[in-house]
Amino acid sequence: MRFTMNSNLEYEVKAPTIFILNLEAAALPRQRIVAEKLTLEPANPIDRFSDDEGGSRFFRVLAEPGRFAVAYEAEVEVNMLDQAPEHIREVPVGDLPLDILPYLLPSRFCQSDLLGRFARREFGELEPGHSRVTAICNWIYEHVDYVRGSSDSQTSAYDTMVLRAGVCRDFAHLGIAFCRALNIPARFASGYAWKLEPPDFHAVFEAYLDGNWYLFDATRQAALQGLVRIGVGRDASDAAFATIYGEAELKGMSVGIEAAHPVADDEPTTRAVGVG
Amino acid sequence: MRFTMNSNLEYEVKAPTIFILNLEAAALPRQRIVAEKLTLEPANPIDRFSDDEGGSRFFRVLAEPGRFAVAYEAEVEVNMLDQAPEHIREVPVGDLPLDILPYLLPSRFCQSDLLGRFARREFGELEPGHSRVTAICNWIYEHVDYVRGSSDSQTSAYDTMVLRAGVCRDFAHLGIAFCRALNIPARFASGYAWKLEPPDFHAVFEAYLDGNWYLFDATRQAALQGLVRIGVGRDASDAAFATIYGEAELKGMSVGIEAAHPVADDEPTTRAVGVG
Amino acid sequence: MRFTMNSNLEYEVKAPTIFILNLEAAALPRQRIVAEKLTLEPANPIDRFSDDEGGSRFFRVLAEPGRFAVAYEAEVEVNMLDQAPEHIREVPVGDLPLDILPYLLPSRFCQSDLLGRFARREFGELEPGHSRVTAICNWIYEHVDYVRGSSDSQTSAYDTMVLRAGVCRDFAHLGIAFCRALNIPARFASGYAWKLEPPDFHAVFEAYLDGNWYLFDATRQAALQGLVRIGVGRDASDAAFATIYGEAELKGMSVGIEAAHPVADDEPTTRAVGVG
Amino acid sequence: MRFTMNSNLEYEVKAPTIFILNLEAAALPRQRIVAEKLTLEPANPIDRFSDDEGGSRFFRVLAEPGRFAVAYEAEVEVNMLDQAPEHIREVPVGDLPLDILPYLLPSRFCQSDLLGRFARREFGELEPGHSRVTAICNWIYEHVDYVRGSSDSQTSAYDTMVLRAGVCRDFAHLGIAFCRALNIPARFASGYAWKLEPPDFHAVFEAYLDGNWYLFDATRQAALQGLVRIGVGRDASDAAFATIYGEAELKGMSVGIEAAHPVADDEPTTRAVGVG
Repeated sequence: MRFTMNSNLEYEVKAPTIFILNLEAAALPRQRIVAEKLTLEPANPIDRFSDDEGGSRFFRVLAEPGRFAVAYEAEVEVNMLDQAPEHIREVPVGDLPLDILPYLLPSRFCQSDLLGRFARREFGELEPGHSRVTAICNWIYEHVDYVRGSSDSQTSAYDTMVLRAGVCRDFAHLGIAFCRALNIPARFASGYAWKLEPPDFHAVFEAYLDGNWYLFDATRQAALQGLVRIGVGRDASDAAFATIYGEAELKGMSVGIEAAHPVADDEPTTRAVGVG
Repeated sequence: MRFTMNSNLEYEVKAPTIFILNLEAAALPRQRIVAEKLTLEPANPIDRFSDDEGGSRFFRVLAEPGRFAVAYEAEVEVNMLDQAPEHIREVPVGDLPLDILPYLLPSRFCQSDLLGRFARREFGELEPGHSRVTAICNWIYEHVDYVRGSSDSQTSAYDTMVLRAGVCRDFAHLGIAFCRALNIPARFASGYAWKLEPPDFHAVFEAYLDGNWYLFDATRQAALQGLVRIGVGRDASDAAFATIYGEAELKGMSVGIEAAHPVADDEPTTRAVGVG
Repeated sequence: MRFTMNSNLEYEVKAPTIFILNLEAAALPRQRIVAEKLTLEPANPIDRFSDDEGGSRFFRVLAEPGRFAVAYEAEVEVNMLDQAPEHIREVPVGDLPLDILPYLLPSRFCQSDLLGRFARREFGELEPGHSRVTAICNWIYEHVDYVRGSSDSQTSAYDTMVLRAGVCRDFAHLGIAFCRALNIPARFASGYAWKLEPPDFHAVFEAYLDGNWYLFDATRQAALQGLVRIGVGRDASDAAFATIYGEAELKGMSVGIEAAHPVADDEPTTRAVGVG
Repeated sequence: MRFTMNSNLEYEVKAPTIFILNLEAAALPRQRIVAEKLTLEPANPIDRFSDDEGGSRFFRVLAEPGRFAVAYEAEVEVNMLDQAPEHIREVPVGDLPLDILPYLLPSRFCQSDLLGRFARREFGELEPGHSRVTAICNWIYEHVDYVRGSSDSQTSAYDTMVLRAGVCRDFAHLGIAFCRALNIPARFASGYAWKLEPPDFHAVFEAYLDGNWYLFDATRQAALQGLVRIGVGRDASDAAFATIYGEAELKGMSVGIEAAHPVADDEPTTRAVGVG
């Protein structure tokens, strides 16, 4: 499928400020960037860097006091893995590629070390595989309320486990923490999410199964086959669309994504969607 | 039923130390103290005070450096409320006696303000009454592991909700927090617990229903009709058997309770047990 | 000194709701209520109850859906203890009146059990007495930023110790926790605060010294000799101006206090101010 | 300087268990491994992997139930950067190499996002550079007690900020959190620490200054010029000497390090020690 997407950020910069921005579509084999355009006002020079492993593309830019705006638009051909979930196995720790191992460790917002007993009690007896991660998503969907404004940038999976409310970021953190507690590598992923209402950057998570990273969205708000991935990381701290060193206020923001061609199939998928 | 019980504490006091001790059977209409004896070595003078409302009996004593031992033995006739649980109603907040209201508030170890969403989701639709508090106990029993050493004196209901392990104190704190979140007054109770293995001070909780305080034990470890209550309070901080200001090390401790007469009925009760 | 004060609360009630309100001036020997008037719209019947020990006056009222407004106005003659702080001693735990002991225990928002090491390190070597509690207030004033909106109703002293920002409630909680950790009984107090800008209910704390409760305000925002006390308790959960069981939204609120006669002395006091 | 070191771990394995071990001296330009020997009993096959950036060397091994022992011995020539600290500058965020940026982000045990206000208040006005990080270490040394057993594997910088006690791991986490909050990249480092008493694996931290990583030890327990680095990571979760997936109990452990040649200079260094 092909999507067009755009995002616009407008800041009022109050002191010289470094922005680390991560809003471009990731460079992935299964996510081909057909066209894209990045516009900065003013057009300050940027430093680019990429995370080879996850395909995240960052750039760093210095903005002086005043208005600073970033506009991105792109057309991306997405060709996700699309598989029957039944046969997607978990990988024993002893067989995991060695560079995947860090995704088993706890992180700032995903305290898998503290959630282990719960995760093993609740999910430990389930059949390993893609369906077990789906069971984790179902549990989150059924036990946590999606409530805008109920959490903030400091809310962690530990908190969400008690408070039982959050937004996409919190749902993803909890899913990641449960997976890691079960020895399933998991990471945070941000993206442009087709059909998300209202449109916004979205957060989901990826679990490493059978040699690939598969997407999961415990909020059930977006269509996974229409998620154009931006960034991945251990949790939201690694994959923020903007990390700001200085003093700047976000004055406006818009995010959009559309299918480039009319799409017949409107059904939510029951297939496993992988980014490879 | 009549019980004989005893407790023995032995401390090594390293600097002049004030002990606030709460290990005598409470003075309650339904708990008649037939005989009792308190022995201190050395036999320092004590100040006594009682909590009129809950019947807790405290005493304060100053111990100088050296060995300090406290021995208590008592014979107590317990005549608990023993009722069919079906007809025991919850009391609407508007009808609660005004001195009961503080037991709706959050406390150090029972953060009912943070557990409200979960409690309402899980127990909010259940039929109000004694059976709903029993459902709370069942949930705790089924979802939290009783593991000696898994918690410490700083562990709160918030933590136990995530960590899913604890001892009697933690089970009681969680039950209290859930009750308060549902507007059921609840408090912490310590006692001598018949049939508890291994013998120790025990912690349970009380919920205020239909005009009386009823006992609940989410650990299912003791026989409620054989719980001789010592102290009550908002949580464990109010009802510690010993609060120590100074420097003293607990060197030995024993606790025991026996039925004074042979008891035929060995069945756990399914009746509601109230302290009045 | 004599003060006139008033408060007005207006709610939109969405379902039958019980309000526990605590906004009347406390009944204290040193705080004589010359005149007062409480008006409810609609004029629903109320249940009154008082905390004998702290003088707090509560009432409970049921409001049906619709507008519900409470107006209070009063004239109060305040005759606080006014003493030279130098001679106000701390009371050893062994000499404390027994009903004061609970104010040494940790509570929901004042985890004195966790702050003990810090408190002893920072304040343990200071001369005991009123001046030591003043030193605690100075530390808080110097190390915590007063920032409106930086905390919420779930913020505890533990959090404030790390986050270093808060409002009057948080400053009081931290002061209480430090005092208790040093074996100085301390409690939360709410009141009408003369000269507070902008006018609002204020929170301070009281420490028990030399047989009386003395007021302390680590925010330095109000004049202690002009604090008309409303309620006291272990922490903010006991002394909220409104505790609500049901569903109601606060639509408007105003609070005011004025000296009834012109006052010459505009200096902040360096005297110890006690409520008896 | 040249050091000989060894470590011995002995486990009782209860179920097939994967060990990820990180106890070999890191492969760094300034840390030349002269000789080394790794012995496993039984001699199971291992998978090796290295973190190119930090030089950490891990291996993975599967152990079957029974005794499992790992012995490592090495001789390492250490040639640390040794500089006058006065001229070592901080690097503005805009000039940091892009792969260093993740070390500015909060992590599981180093919640720099929550400690920012404190860090800026306490250290924000200090002269930037190596001396500011030394000031951070001094603050930790002066305000946190080194107390064996006062913390556990779940203790984070947030906790240590309140509890004010910990071990080397906690001291390092707090230093890292403060640095990151001030926009100084910082990471956790484990090592063999010459002169550490009693001998054990040690934890310190590294700050990125002026183009190099410099070592800091807020515990002041080891000689930095004699720290043979093992691993680095965002915090202790990345740099554990053993991460265990399965069921195994540590039955014995010894760690040792000696200078290979007599060393004249016994003075603690006031020089900046860098790993390059």
